Amino acid sequence: MGRVTADIAVSLDLVATGHDQSEEHPFGPHVGHRLHTWMFDHADDSPDEIAAILGARAYVMGRNMFDPHRGDWVSEWQGWWGPEPPYHAPVFVLCSRPREPLEMQGGTTFHFVTEGPEQALALAREAAGDGDVSIAGGPTTLDAYLAAGAVDELRLHVVPFTVGEGLRVFDRVPDLAMVPVAARTTPHVTHLTYRRA
Amino acid sequence: MGRVTADIAVSLDLVATGHDQSEEHPFGPHVGHRLHTWMFDHADDSPDEIAAILGARAYVMGRNMFDPHRGDWVSEWQGWWGPEPPYHAPVFVLCSRPREPLEMQGGTTFHFVTEGPEQALALAREAAGDGDVSIAGGPTTLDAYLAAGAVDELRLHVVPFTVGEGLRVFDRVPDLAMVPVAARTTPHVTHLTYRRA
Repeated sequence: MGRVTADIAVSLDLVATGHDQSEEHPFGPHVGHRLHTWMFDHADDSPDEIAAILGARAYVMGRNMFDPHRGDWVSEWQGWWGPEPPYHAPVFVLCSRPREPLEMQGGTTFHFVTEGPEQALALAREAAGDGDVSIAGGPTTLDAYLAAGAVDELRLHVVPFTVGEGLRVFDRVPDLAMVPVAARTTPHVTHLTYRRA
Repeated sequence: MGRVTADIAVSLDLVATGHDQSEEHPFGPHVGHRLHTWMFDHADDSPDEIAAILGARAYVMGRNMFDPHRGDWVSEWQGWWGPEPPYHAPVFVLCSRPREPLEMQGGTTFHFVTEGPEQALALAREAAGDGDVSIAGGPTTLDAYLAAGAVDELRLHVVPFTVGEGLRVFDRVPDLAMVPVAARTTPHVTHLTYRRA
């Protein structure tokens, strides 16, 4: 069986997304795109880390990572990533309202799971076979899996500025212990890898 | 003129000290000594980082880093470090009540500064000559100097557990930008060095 990994980009003060998410501002207007410029503007600095993010064979994400809307589904919304999302694998979206699976180009199919995090992970494990499952975020979803002791390898990508507001990783996980196994920095991002204790 | 450096040990969720500090529990009963075991029980893993902490020629610290008491001075209190503190240099303690300088063995003299952080740093710079001044903590004091743009090099020592309560670094410094220059991990602590942007 593969591992459960998780990648998340955070500010120096551990913010993974700002308030006031909207279709125009996936991470809120204050945070903007600043947590992810290292992946796009400076991709040559972090080729291995970027490849690892997309190396899983199934993904789990929270609804807010898929969708800026709340409540009932807006049926035309197909995620932030255009017709061919970068996952190229099944993606299990945690949500409270049922929705039919959404098949995109390039092998990504979004499955909408209303039975909770444990069931979403079980479905993702089954879909991944002997490959890894990745918890793709956001911070609330990641913390739920950290609290359950389900994450084998956590990869934090720390961007060197503070935000001062928003949703942080670890805020819902007091008394978590992990083992650091790697740390590497570029001028734009610091990559920290932790394993389950 | 030397640089202004700062060293601080923090948990994975950036807590530098817990609540309910007392003479028995310098970092509060919940945090205990866990943020500093890497310096004592695993010193062989981090010799350069530990040497760098004590390489400054003058120090600045907040009163709570010197003293578990609040309000008026308890005159017999001479700091946490016994008759010969590890600083071997002048230490400027930010406080609101005057007190005569306290000369300890081995070259450490505590000077009590009531005129605020800017004056404490000016006095420390003068005492350090062309050597470095180190901001020794705690988190409130460090944040004040980060907010003032006074810290040339920040060295975070991240211990791999979460605390869930206490005082965090960066909470009083929104919109700080820094440049990461080094990252290294041991099984017990991750050392991250940042320079002023």
